[in-house]
Amino acid sequence: MKRYIYGIDVGGTSIKFGLFDLSLALIRKWEIPTNTTEYGRYILDDIVQEVNQHTPLLDEVFGYGFGVPGPVVKNVIHICVNLGWVDMDLPALLQNRLQNDNIYVGNDANVAALGEAFLGAGHGRQNVAMITLGTGVGCGIVVDGRILEGYNGSSGEIGHLTIPQQNPFLCKCGKKGCLETVASATGITNIYTRMKQGFLAYSVLNDVRKVTAKDIFEAAQQHDILANEVVNEAAFYIAYACHVLSVSTNPSVIVIGGGVSNAGLFLLDKIIVKFHELAFTPTLQTQIVLATLGNDAGIYGAAGLVIQHG
Amino acid sequence: MKRYIYGIDVGGTSIKFGLFDLSLALIRKWEIPTNTTEYGRYILDDIVQEVNQHTPLLDEVFGYGFGVPGPVVKNVIHICVNLGWVDMDLPALLQNRLQNDNIYVGNDANVAALGEAFLGAGHGRQNVAMITLGTGVGCGIVVDGRILEGYNGSSGEIGHLTIPQQNPFLCKCGKKGCLETVASATGITNIYTRMKQGFLAYSVLNDVRKVTAKDIFEAAQQHDILANEVVNEAAFYIAYACHVLSVSTNPSVIVIGGGVSNAGLFLLDKIIVKFHELAFTPTLQTQIVLATLGNDAGIYGAAGLVIQHG
Repeated sequence: MKRYIYGIDVGGTSIKFGLFDLSLALIRKWEIPTNTTEYGRYILDDIVQEVNQHTPLLDEVFGYGFGVPGPVVKNVIHICVNLGWVDMDLPALLQNRLQNDNIYVGNDANVAALGEAFLGAGHGRQNVAMITLGTGVGCGIVVDGRILEGYNGSSGEIGHLTIPQQNPFLCKCGKKGCLETVASATGITNIYTRMKQGFLAYSVLNDVRKVTAKDIFEAAQQHDILANEVVNEAAFYIAYACHVLSVSTNPSVIVIGGGVSNAGLFLLDKIIVKFHELAFTPTLQTQIVLATLGNDAGIYGAAGLVIQHG
Repeated sequence: MKRYIYGIDVGGTSIKFGLFDLSLALIRKWEIPTNTTEYGRYILDDIVQEVNQHTPLLDEVFGYGFGVPGPVVKNVIHICVNLGWVDMDLPALLQNRLQNDNIYVGNDANVAALGEAFLGAGHGRQNVAMITLGTGVGCGIVVDGRILEGYNGSSGEIGHLTIPQQNPFLCKCGKKGCLETVASATGITNIYTRMKQGFLAYSVLNDVRKVTAKDIFEAAQQHDILANEVVNEAAFYIAYACHVLSVSTNPSVIVIGGGVSNAGLFLLDKIIVKFHELAFTPTLQTQIVLATLGNDAGIYGAAGLVIQHG
């Protein structure tokens, strides 16, 4: 009898496993380190071994969903730089070994958005976008309950939206002025570095040796003027990304997740105020909310892929 | 025997009819003025009468597709200010009168994008966006061969993307700095008006009484410096809109249509150069092309809706 669904989030550092029942209630979750040696050739072996260990009767598994860190179009992985994978048809490679035809794969940011859309902050809405503010800026878009992949898997690459600004920062992608350089954790320290040069008054951050985004948010909440100006500027850029999403794909909910979103309502309120200043009237009702699934969004969304297709 | 499909583009000034065969070859097209009196209550009568006149055997019609100037979600029209229509279930209202269940409706910009995607400049691609630069700026987005409507029909409202700039112009929507105020025909004259104040050298446009976008493009092609700077600035904004679409919905083709696009390759080349400066590497292959269906994109796309659903 079919009783389980696997949601598996394959990251560059760890592989997260979620074992769900057929109603997508989480039964158990665990993770193992990702073995990226030899172009990630051992990753599939490790996954199959874990699955066999936790569910010896493979017959009981209804299907498997995967999130991977790279562009995916129609169940085929184009490239995952962090894993060493190129042009990989994951379902075809696992079909026999897992004795299952229900195998689906999506980009990790998209899959996380699907998780939040269905089971997290999206509360089952059909049109949801998620912006993940971590060391980089990720984004996934769900349209009519399905992941929007785009023609080559570059949908939701809003982290590389160019923000016209004076003296833009260089992005890891090679371009200057990407959203990621002013809205990720690193981006927020970039703004701080730029802004403190012209700031002559006292700031508690002057006494901090290596200022992090977390320091900046804490200082801002303590009413430090410089820190507040930094957070305000970052909030504007995040709000601008929300505005871009609202006039392009028109989601009913935009979910803000990732480490930076740990600043919580303090940051969210600023984003919402600035979004309302930018928003086209019919998109004013777009809700902007904090993610609720944290690091589990990926395994939930991956499992959701199976329900969606299966 | 079913042999016809209607594509009907309902505008505020005229209703365009396209009679197609089942392979979407255009048999005949014509238009009638739109009677918007009494909240557009006579429009449906006029449509039914035209259809009966041109295809007396309603049995021969496979289906009807409509484009309307307002937000549409799942076949229900929310509002068409120009027609006087509010919350109108067009298929339900026409089902009996046209003796047909195959009736579909979409927003006009979206439907035009579908027309260009399938039968125009998109050459049958599945992921296409279209930007229409007319008196306003419209946009339609096709994802996996289907119109992206968004949760309340405001997808592709890129005309109301706020462009951060000094001294932004007021938009008809009430907001300041919308793309429409700097990229539509009016928008291009806005840029001219702003730019000529600081321009001290001679321009052929000095001798023109009421400068239009057409005048500006003509002067630019004659190497007028001021006119060229105006066109360059407008081209940057249009390229920015293309960039926004490419990092959000990731189309393989972006079609530029509308009156402003009559400036042709002269404008297109400038847009492409600036797009490449802004683009995230994986979106560099996104093609930007001129529309090919002109004013017929709406009837083609409306007919396409029928094929898609029928």
